Amino acid sequence: MDRLEKARLELKRMRVPVGIVLKPENIYYLSGFYPSSSAALILGDDPEVLITPMDSTRAGEEIPFRVVEKFSTYLKKIEAKRVGVEKNFISYDFYRRYLKKKSLVDLRFIGEMRKVKQKSEVKLIKEGCRITHRAMKEVQEGSLPRTERELAAEIEYRIGRRAEAAFKAIVASGRNSANPHHTPGGDRIDRKALLFDAGARVHNYCSDLSRSCTLSGNKIQEDWSGIVEEAQKAGIRECRPGKRGEEVDVAIRRILRGYGVEEYFLHSSGHGVGLEVHEPPRLGRDSKEELLSGAVVTVEPGIYKDIGVRLEDVVLVGRNPKVISR
Amino acid sequence: MDRLEKARLELKRMRVPVGIVLKPENIYYLSGFYPSSSAALILGDDPEVLITPMDSTRAGEEIPFRVVEKFSTYLKKIEAKRVGVEKNFISYDFYRRYLKKKSLVDLRFIGEMRKVKQKSEVKLIKEGCRITHRAMKEVQEGSLPRTERELAAEIEYRIGRRAEAAFKAIVASGRNSANPHHTPGGDRIDRKALLFDAGARVHNYCSDLSRSCTLSGNKIQEDWSGIVEEAQKAGIRECRPGKRGEEVDVAIRRILRGYGVEEYFLHSSGHGVGLEVHEPPRLGRDSKEELLSGAVVTVEPGIYKDIGVRLEDVVLVGRNPKVISR
Repeated sequence: MDRLEKARLELKRMRVPVGIVLKPENIYYLSGFYPSSSAALILGDDPEVLITPMDSTRAGEEIPFRVVEKFSTYLKKIEAKRVGVEKNFISYDFYRRYLKKKSLVDLRFIGEMRKVKQKSEVKLIKEGCRITHRAMKEVQEGSLPRTERELAAEIEYRIGRRAEAAFKAIVASGRNSANPHHTPGGDRIDRKALLFDAGARVHNYCSDLSRSCTLSGNKIQEDWSGIVEEAQKAGIRECRPGKRGEEVDVAIRRILRGYGVEEYFLHSSGHGVGLEVHEPPRLGRDSKEELLSGAVVTVEPGIYKDIGVRLEDVVLVGRNPKVISR
Repeated sequence: MDRLEKARLELKRMRVPVGIVLKPENIYYLSGFYPSSSAALILGDDPEVLITPMDSTRAGEEIPFRVVEKFSTYLKKIEAKRVGVEKNFISYDFYRRYLKKKSLVDLRFIGEMRKVKQKSEVKLIKEGCRITHRAMKEVQEGSLPRTERELAAEIEYRIGRRAEAAFKAIVASGRNSANPHHTPGGDRIDRKALLFDAGARVHNYCSDLSRSCTLSGNKIQEDWSGIVEEAQKAGIRECRPGKRGEEVDVAIRRILRGYGVEEYFLHSSGHGVGLEVHEPPRLGRDSKEELLSGAVVTVEPGIYKDIGVRLEDVVLVGRNPKVISR
């Protein structure tokens, strides 16, 4: 059964006559059409996508579409009292303008559907991992440019020639690596500690990898690399159906605590990856989200103090969790 | 007077004791701190930024900050009845969770402040234009790679080495150029018609340029290039204080209509550019937004049919409108 039909049945089950989908990733997931400008997928018995004139040359056979100059005219005409919306995506303004008198039902089932990847989706994510891995390897084997920014541009270029960059590559060296989200700038590369974080996007599916290394030998960097590797292994072991997001985090923190470095782990242990770089489930403190067989998640312990070390791989959740990024 | 102080006075004037700013660009604009993860700038008599542990290594002296594990705990404690928010940015979920019993006041003044650029901001945008212009020129002078995707990667690389790419570069050739938002893929470059759209981001300020050309001689491409150039000139002439956004659009459409090609112009005539690639004011149909002296906008007529031609430059609004992208 195709996804649009699944959505139709789900709306029926919830007794919601009309659903308005605004999030581009959700529009694409359900309809196969990826808008490049404002768009709205109207779910119901006869689904269609509202698009701007600019996207009129892109829309194809995937789903009926209607080119509208002004969405407001159309949206104000919706008569149904119960309307499905993405409650965590629509803005307060949108709510006030079009939905104030409606009874709103959350379309969270789309996110639930997206959590479990089909084989074709896993294949694209895996391909992105391969491209990213290769780009990172190539730049380390070549002669390093002078600055972090140049090295980040180099990684993105190698990814971009084969796919597209899923997000701005992070290259952080020396003290800068102690900042998990460092913006690579004009600083000279410090060979003591290097951290890369990058991803490719292949046919709209993202990947997300981090690697750390030292190029000049560095006891702390090497010790910490060993620790995050052990922690990551413990985390990956938990990526099984029925486990909850927090259990991966707990397993990772237990290892880090054993080495007395838990307090230097400044972010969560991972996240789903797919049409978005960060999507549910969240693998972090208090995450009660259940891990489902076929979900694809990152597992990424890190230690940040003076320098930073992070190891991030992509894992296919299953009875035998499978790392798809190596 | 600094921006934070201006914001404080503006809140006082509106009799709003607490403002919650969530949009990262607005947080940066007012506080000087650019969050890389969830953050909230709390405006009031003693402004502070709430940040995640991940950003704790990035926050500096710009403004007092507070590292919070859970924003909810803090946000639920806000007692004020009147609260300022970005109504077009906060989600419906956020509203329901924290603000349902409040009287909400829109913080639109931040957007108004951002519209008029200070000299230092214009300088960064101009620098981004220079870097983008140079990257586009260099790739045209070099030997062209085989595919659109490779050429796009090349442009981004040349921008990325000097700054960062503000958005994914568009390279569209031949029939693909008839799609204003084409995604460059594995198609071989068609030398008959080429369209580039790219921008650099320099210290968080974006630029946005489009150029079109033919490399093999093409009567239609050349004729249309002449028309969009004339249309752009007419549009730029309207970029004066007191004019409204729609007046730029009207001037451009008048020229295109004269040549019988108005129906092939598929998007608006321009937009503000600054911390975001697209920000107010909008230069399009029915835009009543007033152009203010010191605003920075793109002016970008285009013709799309079989092939596409677009010319996009960045203009500083003033009594003598100034093109800052050439």
